[in-house]
Amino acid sequence: MKDIQSGFDRRNETIDKVGVKNLKYPIILQDRSTGIQSTVADIDFFVELPHHHRGTHMSRFIEVLNSFHREDIIDYLPRLLAAIKEKLLADRAFIKLRFPYFISKQAPVTSIESLMSYNCFFEASLTDEYQLTIGADVPVNTTCPCSKELSDYGAHNQRSIVSIAVTYQDFVWLEDIIEYAERVSSSQLYSLLKRPDEKYVTERAYEHPKFVEDIVRDLSILLKKDDRITTFKVSSENMESIHNHNAYASIEWQR
Amino acid sequence: MKDIQSGFDRRNETIDKVGVKNLKYPIILQDRSTGIQSTVADIDFFVELPHHHRGTHMSRFIEVLNSFHREDIIDYLPRLLAAIKEKLLADRAFIKLRFPYFISKQAPVTSIESLMSYNCFFEASLTDEYQLTIGADVPVNTTCPCSKELSDYGAHNQRSIVSIAVTYQDFVWLEDIIEYAERVSSSQLYSLLKRPDEKYVTERAYEHPKFVEDIVRDLSILLKKDDRITTFKVSSENMESIHNHNAYASIEWQR
Amino acid sequence: MKDIQSGFDRRNETIDKVGVKNLKYPIILQDRSTGIQSTVADIDFFVELPHHHRGTHMSRFIEVLNSFHREDIIDYLPRLLAAIKEKLLADRAFIKLRFPYFISKQAPVTSIESLMSYNCFFEASLTDEYQLTIGADVPVNTTCPCSKELSDYGAHNQRSIVSIAVTYQDFVWLEDIIEYAERVSSSQLYSLLKRPDEKYVTERAYEHPKFVEDIVRDLSILLKKDDRITTFKVSSENMESIHNHNAYASIEWQR
Amino acid sequence: MKDIQSGFDRRNETIDKVGVKNLKYPIILQDRSTGIQSTVADIDFFVELPHHHRGTHMSRFIEVLNSFHREDIIDYLPRLLAAIKEKLLADRAFIKLRFPYFISKQAPVTSIESLMSYNCFFEASLTDEYQLTIGADVPVNTTCPCSKELSDYGAHNQRSIVSIAVTYQDFVWLEDIIEYAERVSSSQLYSLLKRPDEKYVTERAYEHPKFVEDIVRDLSILLKKDDRITTFKVSSENMESIHNHNAYASIEWQR
Repeated sequence: MKDIQSGFDRRNETIDKVGVKNLKYPIILQDRSTGIQSTVADIDFFVELPHHHRGTHMSRFIEVLNSFHREDIIDYLPRLLAAIKEKLLADRAFIKLRFPYFISKQAPVTSIESLMSYNCFFEASLTDEYQLTIGADVPVNTTCPCSKELSDYGAHNQRSIVSIAVTYQDFVWLEDIIEYAERVSSSQLYSLLKRPDEKYVTERAYEHPKFVEDIVRDLSILLKKDDRITTFKVSSENMESIHNHNAYASIEWQR
Repeated sequence: MKDIQSGFDRRNETIDKVGVKNLKYPIILQDRSTGIQSTVADIDFFVELPHHHRGTHMSRFIEVLNSFHREDIIDYLPRLLAAIKEKLLADRAFIKLRFPYFISKQAPVTSIESLMSYNCFFEASLTDEYQLTIGADVPVNTTCPCSKELSDYGAHNQRSIVSIAVTYQDFVWLEDIIEYAERVSSSQLYSLLKRPDEKYVTERAYEHPKFVEDIVRDLSILLKKDDRITTFKVSSENMESIHNHNAYASIEWQR
Repeated sequence: MKDIQSGFDRRNETIDKVGVKNLKYPIILQDRSTGIQSTVADIDFFVELPHHHRGTHMSRFIEVLNSFHREDIIDYLPRLLAAIKEKLLADRAFIKLRFPYFISKQAPVTSIESLMSYNCFFEASLTDEYQLTIGADVPVNTTCPCSKELSDYGAHNQRSIVSIAVTYQDFVWLEDIIEYAERVSSSQLYSLLKRPDEKYVTERAYEHPKFVEDIVRDLSILLKKDDRITTFKVSSENMESIHNHNAYASIEWQR
Repeated sequence: MKDIQSGFDRRNETIDKVGVKNLKYPIILQDRSTGIQSTVADIDFFVELPHHHRGTHMSRFIEVLNSFHREDIIDYLPRLLAAIKEKLLADRAFIKLRFPYFISKQAPVTSIESLMSYNCFFEASLTDEYQLTIGADVPVNTTCPCSKELSDYGAHNQRSIVSIAVTYQDFVWLEDIIEYAERVSSSQLYSLLKRPDEKYVTERAYEHPKFVEDIVRDLSILLKKDDRITTFKVSSENMESIHNHNAYASIEWQR
């Protein structure tokens, strides 16, 4: 059968990224507490297509993925990208995986355990060099300092999403960056809180009011101090409880 | 050209709903304050297809819509459904429109004006009888009574979506049901608040703590007292600021 | 500490559903081929709240779920709902779980294996009686009979989502209803196709043109013949490749 | 009342972007055919916050927007950003507006008119210099060249989203970039097609098979020839009708 994709292309246009988007796939990850965790990822993978090739062979992405998927993903990403580069005759390969990641947390007073989910991602590319970015969206409570200061009682607060993406020179766990985000918030969130826990969380949030600006600044300071981390992007987005729009702040940095 | 859709179908299967989904279309609505409002709708329309017809003529939905769309929509819905029934030889026609609707609101202390958007819908059907349901998703603040009671200071609060859908025997404005939802909340939301307004909203919310259960019960009591309203469904969904999941309650009722 | 939720409520308003929405949670399911499958669910659970209770104890939903989650979910759903009813003093309990489910499929000519994901759900309630609905969204190819008939060559086709929800008196696998949906389509989809497979799928789709109306009628006929099935709702939604809106049809039935 | 946001900040952390996200707002645009078009936008606006300021005054974004919104938006964007810079004492201001935009199209054979909607955006920033990017997501039909070549009859095709974002030195209409995307597709889409039109569109698509790679290359060639355009990013994403994942390609370029 004729292989159109392998044909010569005269248009002289290199394609920055070509490949597959939104493939759902089960994956296995290292888990700092339990060793291993199974979850489900949305996967995009691309190659850079040299100008002389008519098309890429999309099915080969899936074949390569199938040959790896029973292993820990952080471990096999460099080999997967190398295999994609080779099978697709490309100078550059990219992958992005987005997945829910679960961490067992203890309630702050009663210590009852429950699972919290975090939307996380790994994004990697391989040219000659291998590059990996890891990231997490961390839901937290933010309490408004202005509202607390102005008001005789109470302070508006809300669920916020603190997003962190980092590259590192020494291994960093998803759990590490999630903890940084929770540490700078007014309070972290839990799936299961009993009454003494709810009292604790409410008072803790009131005692630690934070603007979106404070969240990203405090996070920036923490991350710069962590020698493992080489670059980061952090943002905070508050689902404001006094408005129907969100408040947002972001900082990018490289060592 | 052969008209396949008009062919006879021997499978003896009536189709409850067949038609077009997610058509974006500009619409014009009556606005209680300003007379008229232009917005953009996502439209679904369906007919019931008798068992002996092979298919429906989807293009006729669009043709009928095109012939009406410069008029006020509540006004033309019965005529539009009648035209669809006739053009598509159907016993029953349905339409649902979802659209953002804007209301100019005054901040509670400074009276500064700003526009709030509400996701609203009209859903109508025509058999022999015409039926219309109108609805709105109203973002509000809910403050947790349990958190307030337990804590020495502060109380967790969050953005919540109060959804109301009603049928009526005497005309009800979208503005009317939106005001009901805002009235039963801990506080309504605004696009623009200055410092004295933020103080007011914060304290008002703290003084009026409400569970999701309270929101739907208080709303149910208000709506039952409004003689224009014949049926309703109300719900409240809190984007809990201490959890990563939502709290939800709903009540349905008919006179 | 005071338990506000347990307080007496004088408003005389029973709440149809109150509980927790959008909790992400890992689950384990029976898999027809491999025995067991791990995936991740979005979970809603509710109870009916009697008019005299002020509020429900949301944390108990999570506690009950935690006590079950390492078992096969279809197996523990009735016990989970019974436990929720008891712990929350409710007459009625509901749960809905939405999750991606993976099936290993062979390409039609080369027999190469790959994983396809399907968005599925289980929805259950317990009053005195236990009721379970299972469902799946099945992506398929639909090729337009009208376009094929009118045109000298080619026919527009597209990805469509065929949704099936059934209740049963004898056990039905998710795989069973997914296969029904794929059987009535112009062609089923695959994650991995080599050139001979792509030729097969293209020609098969062209040979089996189907309107949305045909999909739901053919599915209705198949499901009525399956004696295990007691009720169903089926729909098909085509992401039309000649329009920017979708075509849709649905049929509901009970034995 | 104390103005916390104006306080001095000692953390020495400049914030790249801080502001408001997802504000829904009605806007007015220039329309190449009809002069003026009303639609509804989702708006984000940000400033860069100097390291010595504790916080930004979010309400001022809304105040500035309110003072402009009855004018044509492309016209007032530079003045709006200048006003935001001034009112918020910032060195840099950003805005992004996403909105559905409607164009009346004629069916290719019968010339019947109908409205197509396109998701478009304007993104602008002002430091000393003003920069504007305009963009559109254009739904089209793509027909697979490989499937056509391999198969004795038929060819799989699907709805695809071709996205274009450009900066320009001489004014470019949204309509211009939308037409480029439609020109390079297998066929453009329409809201309303009668049978002779459907025949035309089907045959046209079959005669013009295109990979995602072809779409972005052909678009790149067209855009480079347009002297008004200074930079672009183009991508094409096919909702593959033989897979449950998408095919994707992108090219970025600057003159």
